[in-house]
Amino acid sequence: MEAVAGVEERLVEVAYGAPGGLVAPAFDALTAGGKRLRPILLVLSARMGEPESGALLTASTAIEVLHTATLIHDDVVDKAGSRRGRPTTVAAYGREVAVATGDCLFAEAFHGLAEIGDPRLVRSFSEAAMGLAAGELEQFRSARGPVEVEAYLEHIRMKTAGLFKAACVAGGTLGGLSIKQVDALATYGQALGLAFQMSDDVMDLVGKPGLMGKGVGADLAEGTVTLPVIFALKEGNAAVIRRVLQTPSPPPEILEAGIEAVLATDAIRKTETWALGEIEAALEGLSLLPDRPERAILEAIASEVVGRDA
Amino acid sequence: MEAVAGVEERLVEVAYGAPGGLVAPAFDALTAGGKRLRPILLVLSARMGEPESGALLTASTAIEVLHTATLIHDDVVDKAGSRRGRPTTVAAYGREVAVATGDCLFAEAFHGLAEIGDPRLVRSFSEAAMGLAAGELEQFRSARGPVEVEAYLEHIRMKTAGLFKAACVAGGTLGGLSIKQVDALATYGQALGLAFQMSDDVMDLVGKPGLMGKGVGADLAEGTVTLPVIFALKEGNAAVIRRVLQTPSPPPEILEAGIEAVLATDAIRKTETWALGEIEAALEGLSLLPDRPERAILEAIASEVVGRDA
Repeated sequence: MEAVAGVEERLVEVAYGAPGGLVAPAFDALTAGGKRLRPILLVLSARMGEPESGALLTASTAIEVLHTATLIHDDVVDKAGSRRGRPTTVAAYGREVAVATGDCLFAEAFHGLAEIGDPRLVRSFSEAAMGLAAGELEQFRSARGPVEVEAYLEHIRMKTAGLFKAACVAGGTLGGLSIKQVDALATYGQALGLAFQMSDDVMDLVGKPGLMGKGVGADLAEGTVTLPVIFALKEGNAAVIRRVLQTPSPPPEILEAGIEAVLATDAIRKTETWALGEIEAALEGLSLLPDRPERAILEAIASEVVGRDA
Repeated sequence: MEAVAGVEERLVEVAYGAPGGLVAPAFDALTAGGKRLRPILLVLSARMGEPESGALLTASTAIEVLHTATLIHDDVVDKAGSRRGRPTTVAAYGREVAVATGDCLFAEAFHGLAEIGDPRLVRSFSEAAMGLAAGELEQFRSARGPVEVEAYLEHIRMKTAGLFKAACVAGGTLGGLSIKQVDALATYGQALGLAFQMSDDVMDLVGKPGLMGKGVGADLAEGTVTLPVIFALKEGNAAVIRRVLQTPSPPPEILEAGIEAVLATDAIRKTETWALGEIEAALEGLSLLPDRPERAILEAIASEVVGRDA
């Protein structure tokens, strides 16, 4: 997307600006691809008003740097071997380098924000970052165990939706929108983030090319109790599903039986319905915003997330 | 010290303000003691001018929160079992919680700074944080191997001196000092940090109660090549010293022989002389600052660091 064309270049500059020993891991992590959805949301939100272009590029780079830092640390916690088809920082460089690279990019994100000189952005990003750390941990802690819908929602609100919301709020702030409009963008970002994560959780099971480039059933194999799994445990062959959740590195036949047991229920449809409800909330948030082309793109992104147009 | 009395209380508030699963580890880490040297430096530097007291408390809390975050991550990297005589976060709660707690406190530090609304503070802290991550990693990477004086200085400049410098710069900025005066405080903070680390490295070997509450020879046993060790390798029984450095978890007799080999040389005196040189540089920096009681305290802190008055 043209809106974030400058971000890729900036990310490379960030990598080369890292302290000596961290240039290579930072470069690998920052250029590993991904849809750059958070910078896109930030830029589109900002263009609902009149942002200053330098600040916009800086902030949209910073949010992707922050996102990358959290992915690196998540992979340290999960001991993940690959992400988007490439080795993770921890797999390629070891725990020490991965912790340091994450910390460094974390600091770099705030360093970038400081350039802009608007403390509201620092506040918004740091709140999202606190939530991210806690959300990832809570999900890790609740792996394999029983998880209720409310707890799941709380995890993904912190783990995923918080940074989507921060992107939209930062954008709106840079665009000089009114408090009411920024709140509307916050509603959009949060609901979109929830729907995005639910959709990702569905894709883990139905085997569409996963958004994160993981194999089918990767979350299930790690014992992560996602929304479709919660639904399936209530109405399906819970013993078979629980067996996957409770088997560390489950063999393919156990994993496949578990996926089939989930797919035999109404869990996917229920999850998609829930995600659609979030999308409705997201779109409703947008209605308060000026009718600009950027609003149409934000609407289209929301529709795409739940796979209706994909 | 009265100047930072409010900080202890604020640190407790920060812990209780952490997301649910992180309150206990954050509380343990933030209240584990320590001299609160960085907040003290920040407050004293600020009082060379006329700081606003709310911002001062917020910033001095933030720098201790940031320092604590980096200690937690350092212990994840080093797999350290105890610090200041208590179990580390990673030892008490595991890697997942330790990474998340560090990330959360990291974000909290910037969140606190955002309250103040001065981007120069965010910039100063984030630069220090980047250096810290890199310095700790470089030191870890160079463990057991040959290290030259220049590399050692670069490591401790990033690992220790950067945050001392940031404390003094942030203080001077909040006090509304001139650029020249803030630069003088930066010189003081950086030189003090170098001397502080050198002194800490000496204490690891001479067995004074360590500043960090570690056992005698703990750094040497981990393979960390400090300044006295570099000197001793050049003029002493290098084979015996190298044997400690290259033995993972060396048994007491090997460790003690290594310490004795260092102490048999002029390495401690040379290191102390170097540290004294840094202290001179630190004091010279202060001469540009107003002759207030706070300056006398900063001078006294510098003198104390190298053990002259201790």
